[in-house]
Amino acid sequence: MEKIGVLVWGLGNMGRGIAEMLLTKEGIEVVGAIEKRIANDVDLGIYLNKEVRLNVMVGNNPEKMILETKPDICILAINSFVKGVMEEISILAKHKVCVITIAEEMAYPYDSEPDLSKELDRLAKKNEITILGTGVNPGFVLDTLILQLSLAVRHVEKIKAIRINDLSPFGKTVMEEQGVGLSEVEFNIGIENGSIYGHVGFLQSIPMIARAMGLEYDEIVQTREPIISKVYRETKDIIVKPGMVAGCRHIAIAKKDGKEIIILEHPQQIRPDLEEIETGDYIEIFGDPHLKMRIKPEVPGGIGTIAAAVNAIPQVLNASPGLVTMVDLPVVHAIMDDFRNHLK
Amino acid sequence: MEKIGVLVWGLGNMGRGIAEMLLTKEGIEVVGAIEKRIANDVDLGIYLNKEVRLNVMVGNNPEKMILETKPDICILAINSFVKGVMEEISILAKHKVCVITIAEEMAYPYDSEPDLSKELDRLAKKNEITILGTGVNPGFVLDTLILQLSLAVRHVEKIKAIRINDLSPFGKTVMEEQGVGLSEVEFNIGIENGSIYGHVGFLQSIPMIARAMGLEYDEIVQTREPIISKVYRETKDIIVKPGMVAGCRHIAIAKKDGKEIIILEHPQQIRPDLEEIETGDYIEIFGDPHLKMRIKPEVPGGIGTIAAAVNAIPQVLNASPGLVTMVDLPVVHAIMDDFRNHLK
Repeated sequence: MEKIGVLVWGLGNMGRGIAEMLLTKEGIEVVGAIEKRIANDVDLGIYLNKEVRLNVMVGNNPEKMILETKPDICILAINSFVKGVMEEISILAKHKVCVITIAEEMAYPYDSEPDLSKELDRLAKKNEITILGTGVNPGFVLDTLILQLSLAVRHVEKIKAIRINDLSPFGKTVMEEQGVGLSEVEFNIGIENGSIYGHVGFLQSIPMIARAMGLEYDEIVQTREPIISKVYRETKDIIVKPGMVAGCRHIAIAKKDGKEIIILEHPQQIRPDLEEIETGDYIEIFGDPHLKMRIKPEVPGGIGTIAAAVNAIPQVLNASPGLVTMVDLPVVHAIMDDFRNHLK
Repeated sequence: MEKIGVLVWGLGNMGRGIAEMLLTKEGIEVVGAIEKRIANDVDLGIYLNKEVRLNVMVGNNPEKMILETKPDICILAINSFVKGVMEEISILAKHKVCVITIAEEMAYPYDSEPDLSKELDRLAKKNEITILGTGVNPGFVLDTLILQLSLAVRHVEKIKAIRINDLSPFGKTVMEEQGVGLSEVEFNIGIENGSIYGHVGFLQSIPMIARAMGLEYDEIVQTREPIISKVYRETKDIIVKPGMVAGCRHIAIAKKDGKEIIILEHPQQIRPDLEEIETGDYIEIFGDPHLKMRIKPEVPGGIGTIAAAVNAIPQVLNASPGLVTMVDLPVVHAIMDDFRNHLK
């Protein structure tokens, strides 16, 4: 059997990491990469600052790259939103290429983009491909993992999960989206005008959990508060003095008749260690039985998302055609042997 | 759509718990139960010591019960071993009834019973049914959950997982199998002659993890040591004086060229709290990244197994025909609405 041909679309931090991981895996051939921001085609080895050429092209013309490389599957890492990946997925579908995307909203697009979700499902079925959105959050820690844990639960009353992470490794864009380095007043203005968003994913994770478990809610209440630093914090990109904003505490609560059913909290900040805040993922299912899980430190967001996208390749290739989510697929797990061993 | 007709086969502690849980769930009809140890048919309500009759029969004649109740699926809770459920599954297959069993060895029967596994798969496909073995351990904590966590891992070096639980709720049979209440000498004799077994499941969990992840090993080394109590311990069934055996520390290690690849530890004892041993499930994946998960206290074995068997009903009914394991199915999770909402 030929190797699984994978195209990487988008070579930002995530796309580069995905390409690097794919290159280490047996049974997979990186057939090419697409990066619209480059002026001329370049070898992937050069692009990734490797010592050697890989004889794999990075091109800026999607249709040309797809026609020349004939991939089985594409990992798409260009944008967080369904609207931001529709055009790319349509092109891939036309050429019958399966899609894994790390666009956060694609982890469970049905509620925020019902019409586009139907269109994607129709496109997938018509072209006999499978389309999956995945990642660490949404896609895993605050949804799939909660569902997995509930396997052992007879009756669910309430779910509470908290992901406390460290933003320090991220660059300026993320710092701006989270309001890091601002005064409290500037932060509140940013929330008002939409320039500070917090976490993209609660409106995916909550419906995904609720629909799978059959939990009802009538509203989702979201709050975004500044995390005001008590101490001096510094990363390579930014300085936060005491009294300034070190990050954003984003909380989403699904309620039914005023009662809290699903509570997801995601305080993101730089250098939480300096205030002795321990990062980690915490899941608590209140019910019968009552279960408490923690992962400490937290599942790393960047590496974890890269791994999720690559590890999902066999499950996506094995799946029936359509738009799917992590709830629809057999458990995605690390693969250390030839990926072709995991194809049906 | 009619309710999902479920037959419960075996009304020991687990089977009774399964029947009780099924009775609380929407979209499910318990159509009957089989318990060979009863002399005459009896109403399930009476059998479960409820105030009311349920108009659901418990019978001792399997074929008659199946023909009269026409179940869609049977939950089989009679035995730990593949050989101990072959006859029952053959009967169910003949009548085209899907099977979920909590027989530990059925969680991943391919290595310990390769011929019987082939026969079960053949039977399932011929009769267009799906057969699943599940439970908390094996089936979840020391295998499926490890695999689920590895979704976020790029490279796996080694896996170590420990399940520390409390045997106190269990009855005399389990105490005897684990050597509780014996002297150290008696325990060692029991290990020699096979009357003390420890945990049934390592020879399922290890191959299940290894096969899914593509990890190689050339031997599995098992040890069973007595847990000698330092203090006086007592349950309703048994007394353990200082110096006597409070339980069995069962360890299984998969090695490749002498190097440890998968280490599973399962110390089981009564009243671990009296020596300030905290029960819990601990999973550590050494690799990139290094992940550490804990569930504390541990996922309760009895309740969790009951929940796993019932919660798996839609995934089994939706699956393609054949013998399957938890790795083959979409994530099994708690269900609080009508089970029929989860059928394809």
